[in-house]
Amino acid sequence: MKIWTYDKCVSVSELVSYELKRPSPLIMKEVCRALGNAAADDSKLLLLSSVGTVFCSGLEPSYLIGRLSTDRRKESSRIAEAVRDFVLAFIHFKKPIVVAINGPALGLGASILPLCDVVWASERAWFQTPCAALHLTPSGCSSYTFPQILGVALANEMLFCGRKLTAQEACSRGLVSQVFWPTTFNQEVMLRVKEMASCNAVVLEESKCLVRSILIPVLEEVNEKECQMLKQLWCSTKGLEALFSYMHSKTTEK
Amino acid sequence: MKIWTYDKCVSVSELVSYELKRPSPLIMKEVCRALGNAAADDSKLLLLSSVGTVFCSGLEPSYLIGRLSTDRRKESSRIAEAVRDFVLAFIHFKKPIVVAINGPALGLGASILPLCDVVWASERAWFQTPCAALHLTPSGCSSYTFPQILGVALANEMLFCGRKLTAQEACSRGLVSQVFWPTTFNQEVMLRVKEMASCNAVVLEESKCLVRSILIPVLEEVNEKECQMLKQLWCSTKGLEALFSYMHSKTTEK
Amino acid sequence: MKIWTYDKCVSVSELVSYELKRPSPLIMKEVCRALGNAAADDSKLLLLSSVGTVFCSGLEPSYLIGRLSTDRRKESSRIAEAVRDFVLAFIHFKKPIVVAINGPALGLGASILPLCDVVWASERAWFQTPCAALHLTPSGCSSYTFPQILGVALANEMLFCGRKLTAQEACSRGLVSQVFWPTTFNQEVMLRVKEMASCNAVVLEESKCLVRSILIPVLEEVNEKECQMLKQLWCSTKGLEALFSYMHSKTTEK
Repeated sequence: MKIWTYDKCVSVSELVSYELKRPSPLIMKEVCRALGNAAADDSKLLLLSSVGTVFCSGLEPSYLIGRLSTDRRKESSRIAEAVRDFVLAFIHFKKPIVVAINGPALGLGASILPLCDVVWASERAWFQTPCAALHLTPSGCSSYTFPQILGVALANEMLFCGRKLTAQEACSRGLVSQVFWPTTFNQEVMLRVKEMASCNAVVLEESKCLVRSILIPVLEEVNEKECQMLKQLWCSTKGLEALFSYMHSKTTEK
Repeated sequence: MKIWTYDKCVSVSELVSYELKRPSPLIMKEVCRALGNAAADDSKLLLLSSVGTVFCSGLEPSYLIGRLSTDRRKESSRIAEAVRDFVLAFIHFKKPIVVAINGPALGLGASILPLCDVVWASERAWFQTPCAALHLTPSGCSSYTFPQILGVALANEMLFCGRKLTAQEACSRGLVSQVFWPTTFNQEVMLRVKEMASCNAVVLEESKCLVRSILIPVLEEVNEKECQMLKQLWCSTKGLEALFSYMHSKTTEK
Repeated sequence: MKIWTYDKCVSVSELVSYELKRPSPLIMKEVCRALGNAAADDSKLLLLSSVGTVFCSGLEPSYLIGRLSTDRRKESSRIAEAVRDFVLAFIHFKKPIVVAINGPALGLGASILPLCDVVWASERAWFQTPCAALHLTPSGCSSYTFPQILGVALANEMLFCGRKLTAQEACSRGLVSQVFWPTTFNQEVMLRVKEMASCNAVVLEESKCLVRSILIPVLEEVNEKECQMLKQLWCSTKGLEALFSYMHSKTTEK
């Protein structure tokens, strides 16, 4: 995932370009810092996109196993707090966030989309939050935002059964607002971002404030609860066992 | 409607098999008791499905007329309380509820779907809540959940105008999460239920808790208000007259 | 836009017939008065439709420029208050409102649709709220209702980028509940309105009350905030400049 800010003079400046393809607490902290900088600079909006063919693969099970095996109590707190702060940074970001998804968006990479403002996807994108299979509970406020957007039945099918959504399905159900052809995806996105950036910065920020402010306390509460629950699961012996057995099943699948 | 629980060892055990095709206060009470048992046993999730070609036909107008004609005040309280407790049992059920709908789901049978967690339908299913035509106001929390899921315009068209939704329409609007071919419907459902039942029970229950807990006080309040209003209508002379004239129009239609 | 009431004896009586195609504070006040009358008469529901090919074009930029150029402070208050009261009249209207849209619905004409109860559109209708381009923030409670109905991504694309929705898109996303062929549009609407008007008035009003009452305090708050923000923008020098430059770009486009 790349973070760009779109500045006053309608040029794109690359702000951060580390990969969110495999978010770790370290990467998440860097993204928070980048969002902090983008909030303070004179850009009008933020563009999240990815380099390569993957948007975000979610938390790496092998990373989780590695960390939790060393010091379960301490590491579960550390990772849960990193997730919490990462999600909070999106909840509190005041400028519009445009997301351009050109490949698979899994786990946190899919969960945070409803915390962003405009979401465009390439035909090649797809979306999955296989949390239950990974012995995880929902994160990124998806326990609240997914039912709101997708309806409770589809949201739960994604969260409980790991249902994959194609770009077109995600669009027809409201997670994404428009789908573009892969070969012209970047042009289509930049065309629209430029037009959006021609709007007045105050109007963009105040419009976002009107749309979001009423939900912020709810999202903060949901995020807190979700991360508490993750910490509890990671702390438990069963949580670790489930991650091991998931890794094992993935290995034997291959 | 049948209620199954899906137990630890991934086998299906039939729990109750009376018909919810024509729910009466008696049947509704039995379902509450069955849900209570399912909550206490060691199953991971609940599967609601139906035998035959009808999922649920809603409250029977002739039953209502029969009861209300004898003692309007007492019977309107009794039936409204049965509906309230029936709906509350769904609101408070902590394990995931999977619904498999293979035929028409009317009235309460359609209204309670958003209180369940995953909803799959056969191509043969359809959905209708013709409450206004029956001189009834919405029930099953549909006055709250239908606008949330379907948008206010379609929700009201269903509640005020008795608009029928096909399985595909219900799916594209979010009431249902997936539609399957009638001949393979049961296999498709059981395949997915088995996979879901392979997840950890704590993860399933806590995920549901995250998705639902924030809404429970709202749903309780809505259910209370809806049942108060139903009681008031059933208590009134006009309410009874409307039921009679509906029955009459149905008879003359044939 | 025409306002009709649909009375007890299932005949249509024209109540108001001035054009809401270009709503001004004066027109908005007249609509409020008309809604007040319709609330008090013995009609069961209200039908909003339009004569000609346009449903509503939203606030006229040239009107805004004209008024704001004379006395920015006073006029910005006056217009913002007119919008606030106009929107409040829809929020508080107790009988079901049916809207029949046979052409473009822009700005306020699109924003207020979620405050109405059943929304039918002709294939010729389309929907747009190009507020950011006009240096305006959302109005008509669209900052709350659009994300609820369309999902946050599409809502923001409409509010920030001026995305146009066709009738079919608006229907598949929930803003509209059904689309009809232009040549038979009026018949289809009247057929359904007549059927709806055959329902009991108390049942219709109480059903609407159940669906709406829980949202009224939220909508009142959102409307207040939206109008405060509009007043602030209109009061500012930049706001006026943006309107001028929009007018200019429209003129040079032609």
